Amino acid sequence: MTLHWTAAAIDGAARAGTLHTAHGEVPTPVFMPVGTAGTIKAMTADAVRSTGARMILGNTYHLMLRPTAERIARLGGLHKFADWHGPILTDSGGFQVMSLAGLRKLDADGVTFQSHIDGSKHRLTPERSIEIQHLLGADVTMCFDECTPFPATEEQAAESMRLSMRWAARSRDAFVARPGHGLFGIVQGSTFAELRAESVAALTAIGFEGYAIGGLAVGEGQEAMFATLDVTTPLLPADRPRYLMGVGTPADIIGAVRRGIDMFDCVIPTRSGRTARAYTSAGQLNLRNARHADDGAPLDASCACPACRNHSRAYLHHLFKCEEMLGPMLLTWHNIAYYQQVTGTLRAAILDGRFEAVATRLEAALDPA
Amino acid sequence: MTLHWTAAAIDGAARAGTLHTAHGEVPTPVFMPVGTAGTIKAMTADAVRSTGARMILGNTYHLMLRPTAERIARLGGLHKFADWHGPILTDSGGFQVMSLAGLRKLDADGVTFQSHIDGSKHRLTPERSIEIQHLLGADVTMCFDECTPFPATEEQAAESMRLSMRWAARSRDAFVARPGHGLFGIVQGSTFAELRAESVAALTAIGFEGYAIGGLAVGEGQEAMFATLDVTTPLLPADRPRYLMGVGTPADIIGAVRRGIDMFDCVIPTRSGRTARAYTSAGQLNLRNARHADDGAPLDASCACPACRNHSRAYLHHLFKCEEMLGPMLLTWHNIAYYQQVTGTLRAAILDGRFEAVATRLEAALDPA
Repeated sequence: MTLHWTAAAIDGAARAGTLHTAHGEVPTPVFMPVGTAGTIKAMTADAVRSTGARMILGNTYHLMLRPTAERIARLGGLHKFADWHGPILTDSGGFQVMSLAGLRKLDADGVTFQSHIDGSKHRLTPERSIEIQHLLGADVTMCFDECTPFPATEEQAAESMRLSMRWAARSRDAFVARPGHGLFGIVQGSTFAELRAESVAALTAIGFEGYAIGGLAVGEGQEAMFATLDVTTPLLPADRPRYLMGVGTPADIIGAVRRGIDMFDCVIPTRSGRTARAYTSAGQLNLRNARHADDGAPLDASCACPACRNHSRAYLHHLFKCEEMLGPMLLTWHNIAYYQQVTGTLRAAILDGRFEAVATRLEAALDPA
Repeated sequence: MTLHWTAAAIDGAARAGTLHTAHGEVPTPVFMPVGTAGTIKAMTADAVRSTGARMILGNTYHLMLRPTAERIARLGGLHKFADWHGPILTDSGGFQVMSLAGLRKLDADGVTFQSHIDGSKHRLTPERSIEIQHLLGADVTMCFDECTPFPATEEQAAESMRLSMRWAARSRDAFVARPGHGLFGIVQGSTFAELRAESVAALTAIGFEGYAIGGLAVGEGQEAMFATLDVTTPLLPADRPRYLMGVGTPADIIGAVRRGIDMFDCVIPTRSGRTARAYTSAGQLNLRNARHADDGAPLDASCACPACRNHSRAYLHHLFKCEEMLGPMLLTWHNIAYYQQVTGTLRAAILDGRFEAVATRLEAALDPA
């Protein structure tokens, strides 16, 4: 059977369910930590597992450059390489080509670009992106698309979206179906409701195992992002998983689950962890702040991660002040654990039919008045 | 009862025993990972424990500057701060003042120096060093001494050693005896046998719970170090633990255990781990070397640490090539695990009365012909 999603409960538009993959089942809503180059930065795979994370993301762009997809395939695939035995979703490389690569040239067939590491020349097409993701062994493969920059005129957004839709059809043709594996289409159209609807129609006509919403969290702001979800998610097939790419803060995730999103990925918890920013059940904290120097209290008393269970805020502050690696290690661990707590709490609330009450309480705690 | 050591077996000059401390018993020979600023660099305390490490070292110099000994005392002591529930040995600060601090001035009473971090002025005397180590909560406190630089003339070495002996007497007076805690004297005298003997006589006349050999591994080379041990350890009381400070490579440790040393500390396994150098049962490897890029074999098939159990050499190579933090994290973990395997193997061999056979086999594997 191919990769698929089953609903367990619906509460308003919020959905709790299960994603069934070749590497196991994943309760949704799910937050996938980002393992850019085959590692969730500053964490062992055992540590990632201990947070309750069940699925991670790998980046086609980074892995095709180093160590290369062919090398990972020879070594037995990304699961083995990275010691991750649960499902892996890989992006298509399109977004990083646009945000990281050097000189790049887009044509109707694909993108030619220079590596940001050594300037070497590379090319991605829908066919090559799908091939790379197959070599990596992704459970969820993403269509090769262009992430429309923000802001864009309606004409630019339409042209970009239609290119992505042509590439989506080519991605579908290139994808090799295997049990427990699937291909997700990516809805584009910037913040224009009619373009989003056109994009959904194009993708559903092709047919995918899941639908992602791309081109958001690129500067449009939370209000415009939520407005775009409001006009897009109702159009998506109810029986397929929905993935909001690159999102976001805890408040973004709560708001998107409220609007029917099942899957998330974002570098915020890992990147913030490396720069001393903690996400907690009582809001954000900067551990570099001198006010933590003598604070013997745990970072988040309601969290069971090693940073919270074994150490004080004073210790975490000390580690960042001394630029000790253990600071980023512990804070990344905490942030990923906290994100898992958020999605786990939302899931339990949906199953209980209490989503709004729980979501509202979480939101209020995140932003103390 | 004060901190003490009991012998379990003697094989030639090699000793297996147990160090009894306020924070538990430690089988010897023991290698203590170095937790400079209250963290074994790149490892959580849980990870350190998982290697079998039972005792760690903390640095008075680093901790007195950041976060300060008084702050650690207010927060409940170094054990709680660093989440280390086994015994901790702290050095006296003297060695780092000489190797790291800025402008410094030695007088008969102590040393005045500038912090290498912010240039602020500080002073250490025997009394202040012992007080700091008490504030940290050290199980083993080290006498404040001057680590004689190498090379030194016999006159310089004698003068330096005699200063350290006067400071040892002051350290003994300043030390507050508590059950399970102890003070170690430090033998100095550079590579001069008569000075080493004079130093041992001075220290044993004062009386300490253990005896360290200082002023070695400072450039004299392994042959001179072993020659100095040959003329020093036979003079030390047989019923007290013996600690060779700042040593060393696996081969150094094997040779020193052969000569009757019980305790070791060194930054080699941690520092090497951060720079891609692995110590394995088959010798050293540099994981940056391109020959590892396609090697699906584990780093050390006989090791059960996560780097060896969960990953390939190719993955470790990839992490260092991408400058991912997980590279230093995994390789430090392995190196510390390997050092624990070495001391554990030596201990088992002494208990079996097979020390020479086992030590010779380990040495041969370390240095394949």
